[in-house]
Amino acid sequence: MSKKLTSRSENYSEWYNEIVAKADLAENSGVRGCMVIKPYGYAIWEKMQAQLDKMFKETGHTNAYFPLFVPKHMFEAEEKNAEGFAKECAVVTHYRLKNDPENPGKLIVDPNAKLEEELIVRPTSEAIIWSTYKKWIQSYRDLPILINQWANVVRWEMRTRLFLRTAEFLWQEGHTAHATKAEAIEETEKMLNVYADFVENFMGIPVIKGLKTESERFAGAIETYCIEALMQDGKALQAGTSHFLGQNFAEAFDVKFTTSEGKMEHVWATSWGVSTRLMGALIMSHSDDAGLVLPPNLAPIQVVIVPIYKGEEQYDKVVSHGKELKTELEKLGISVKLDDDDKRKPGWKFAEYEMKGVPVRIAIGQRDIDNGVLEIARRDTQEKSSINRSDLTNHIPQLLEDIQTSLFTKAKSFTNNHITPVDSYDEFKKTLNNKGGFISAHWDGTAESEQKIKEETKATIRCIPLDAKEELGTCIYSGNTSNKRVIFAKAY
Amino acid sequence: MSKKLTSRSENYSEWYNEIVAKADLAENSGVRGCMVIKPYGYAIWEKMQAQLDKMFKETGHTNAYFPLFVPKHMFEAEEKNAEGFAKECAVVTHYRLKNDPENPGKLIVDPNAKLEEELIVRPTSEAIIWSTYKKWIQSYRDLPILINQWANVVRWEMRTRLFLRTAEFLWQEGHTAHATKAEAIEETEKMLNVYADFVENFMGIPVIKGLKTESERFAGAIETYCIEALMQDGKALQAGTSHFLGQNFAEAFDVKFTTSEGKMEHVWATSWGVSTRLMGALIMSHSDDAGLVLPPNLAPIQVVIVPIYKGEEQYDKVVSHGKELKTELEKLGISVKLDDDDKRKPGWKFAEYEMKGVPVRIAIGQRDIDNGVLEIARRDTQEKSSINRSDLTNHIPQLLEDIQTSLFTKAKSFTNNHITPVDSYDEFKKTLNNKGGFISAHWDGTAESEQKIKEETKATIRCIPLDAKEELGTCIYSGNTSNKRVIFAKAY
Repeated sequence: MSKKLTSRSENYSEWYNEIVAKADLAENSGVRGCMVIKPYGYAIWEKMQAQLDKMFKETGHTNAYFPLFVPKHMFEAEEKNAEGFAKECAVVTHYRLKNDPENPGKLIVDPNAKLEEELIVRPTSEAIIWSTYKKWIQSYRDLPILINQWANVVRWEMRTRLFLRTAEFLWQEGHTAHATKAEAIEETEKMLNVYADFVENFMGIPVIKGLKTESERFAGAIETYCIEALMQDGKALQAGTSHFLGQNFAEAFDVKFTTSEGKMEHVWATSWGVSTRLMGALIMSHSDDAGLVLPPNLAPIQVVIVPIYKGEEQYDKVVSHGKELKTELEKLGISVKLDDDDKRKPGWKFAEYEMKGVPVRIAIGQRDIDNGVLEIARRDTQEKSSINRSDLTNHIPQLLEDIQTSLFTKAKSFTNNHITPVDSYDEFKKTLNNKGGFISAHWDGTAESEQKIKEETKATIRCIPLDAKEELGTCIYSGNTSNKRVIFAKAY
Repeated sequence: MSKKLTSRSENYSEWYNEIVAKADLAENSGVRGCMVIKPYGYAIWEKMQAQLDKMFKETGHTNAYFPLFVPKHMFEAEEKNAEGFAKECAVVTHYRLKNDPENPGKLIVDPNAKLEEELIVRPTSEAIIWSTYKKWIQSYRDLPILINQWANVVRWEMRTRLFLRTAEFLWQEGHTAHATKAEAIEETEKMLNVYADFVENFMGIPVIKGLKTESERFAGAIETYCIEALMQDGKALQAGTSHFLGQNFAEAFDVKFTTSEGKMEHVWATSWGVSTRLMGALIMSHSDDAGLVLPPNLAPIQVVIVPIYKGEEQYDKVVSHGKELKTELEKLGISVKLDDDDKRKPGWKFAEYEMKGVPVRIAIGQRDIDNGVLEIARRDTQEKSSINRSDLTNHIPQLLEDIQTSLFTKAKSFTNNHITPVDSYDEFKKTLNNKGGFISAHWDGTAESEQKIKEETKATIRCIPLDAKEELGTCIYSGNTSNKRVIFAKAY
């Protein structure tokens, strides 16, 4: 497989597909819309998981596990939620196969093994979890419940795209139960901030925090908070959502508790999630025409050491030198790969680790050893430099930090340069077509204007920013008054 | 809920169910046969996962993720495997629900959204994984592939039991591909040893390593290796299996590679797995009539500190003293809970942590502070002792190690005392009924004798031990000659 990529300017979408394939991140499977996450891609996801899990635990949450299946009657209990997901549900109807009498060696679904009630493969777990919480909650003493689940979910999608939109995906879903509205809203906002913190400081991707409009809200939520990130092609990507569910699920599943004053009240709920979609955001934020670019915090290999040598004697010396460097760096908690594979040429290795986004490459040859120097290349800027061998353990940790910061700074500056305030619909359409990115514009707050703009331009309201200033203006579509700007964009 | 358990001697099965409930480990869900793993139970599973994952990575494996669904034609490709699992498959036949025209607010399966080909919810992933490996393997250079997956699987079971037998369960499944038969067998045995090491040294449960008979083999395997553990009621539990799959899946999915000599050959395969069933083994190996007993290596809370006090002033002092102890122990990497909840009495707390199997309890009152001592209780033996405050950081790590060792020693001695060699069928049946446990007996190697013994006594051959000595004898059932003893038992 050629390691050369289609360039972003040539065909952004193709560039994305090629990186996913050539950096060995994921591939389509033999199952419609379901992906295989390959070891290198999964190793990045594991790093995300580990960090998020730590952050959830630090904010008082514990993990648990709830069933994959949701019986139909339970699924339909919260009507808005059910309606929102009904059209994309995989449904289990039978529990047995049998030999096909007409085709030896083949199997057919056993018609005698039809389920009395169909089971929905969870597209999200509010229903199954709130039917369980009902058993757990009697008194205010049982609250709050702060639980997260790492799981697979299925949403039947017609047009799928690796990581960005797949029928099955991996995610975490937090589901919390509270005694008061204020506490539930506080939790919703807290988790939004955890996501923003993670995506910005760990993934190096700047985000705008905001509220979804009613039409973009999670089905069954009173309010959906989101973080929106901007990809290099000027399209937005929703990176995480945190929902204030009010008492909707408590009412649907009749979950009440006795308050400290002895009254019976419905419980308040939140849910929040991020998924393997973040892998798509990661790829599209930082990578370039030479391949994946990974922030050091998420890189399965942070430093790769490539020996340059001629003949067996040099090989032994250079590799043994490489081992020393590896050991020293590993002592600092840095993950290092020494690629001592004799069957591959250095040039091939350079291209391979460039494609895979390894943040730092150290090349060592006999002359470098003799001169007491190391040749360092950083992946993000593709700059090369030479350092003294003795500076290794000072230089590399600092360099990794610099790369982490620099990726965020670069992406932040790109995003900032692509938040365009516009004041007319003409300007709006021009900006959308010529520049893309986030467009900050006045909107009259109606679903009608929002819908018309979407139909006419394919741009949606990504969010009403949490920090939007009160500012009198007129809706770019209807001309009616508006008191704050919202953020529009075309989106993934 | 009363914290008193039915005793093991009274009703072992009921005792198990009550521990699972009262120690907050898991519960039945509203979905037939599927369980909810509660936070405390899940925290134990997370500790198992973390350790196993570490051991897999240390032996060169990486994680990946493959689809939940298996299209029917793919599922039936390896005929024996398909036949073995066909009767317990959940089958997805539709991908959409729609509003029920006759019942507003209710949903029905949309008959227009019938899948062209049914999807099987994976009962195990050989089929989907080998259909993928086909794309990954061309040459000997692509081998070995050493991949593990953490996933949920579904096997439709008619009679379910929390952790021991559930329709959906969590597990890991390793799937490896090799160039030679010898290498694949080496991998199969290596992973069996990893499991044995984990179960014995981490879970404190002794096991017998062996081979399954043909009738007990994994569907599609050439050879199934297993570890078998003995529960306190004298029944065996299969704790892990490692399968040598030969070239069966490579043939079914046409996975060939070019050898270094340029020949085309089918790839050799292994698969190996352990599941949340290990939670059942854990509970039944160590626990007692007062509740769960956890080996320190798996305890989410290794030490609980319970303050004893009268009045607010004493509370503050005792709790602040508790915080100091906690900090000191946490510095040693010990997980500590200081239960400073003022709403619960010490007696309630003692019973609670006893039920939950916390290995060590430290009770501290004003008098202990004045005297510079600490009252220590260990969960496994229920022994109490008093130590000097200054000995804390020496004593507790040692005590935790002692408990870990002691649990294994106790279980090992129980198992050893319940491996009974017998030489006649009468003796066999007597031992089975009066003493239970593992029975070491001669068997003629035929499926007929094995089946008859099973029908007549409910005992199955758990394994042919790897360390079985060559020893001439006669089959307890048929009287035919046999050259080694095998291990029988009634089993979970």
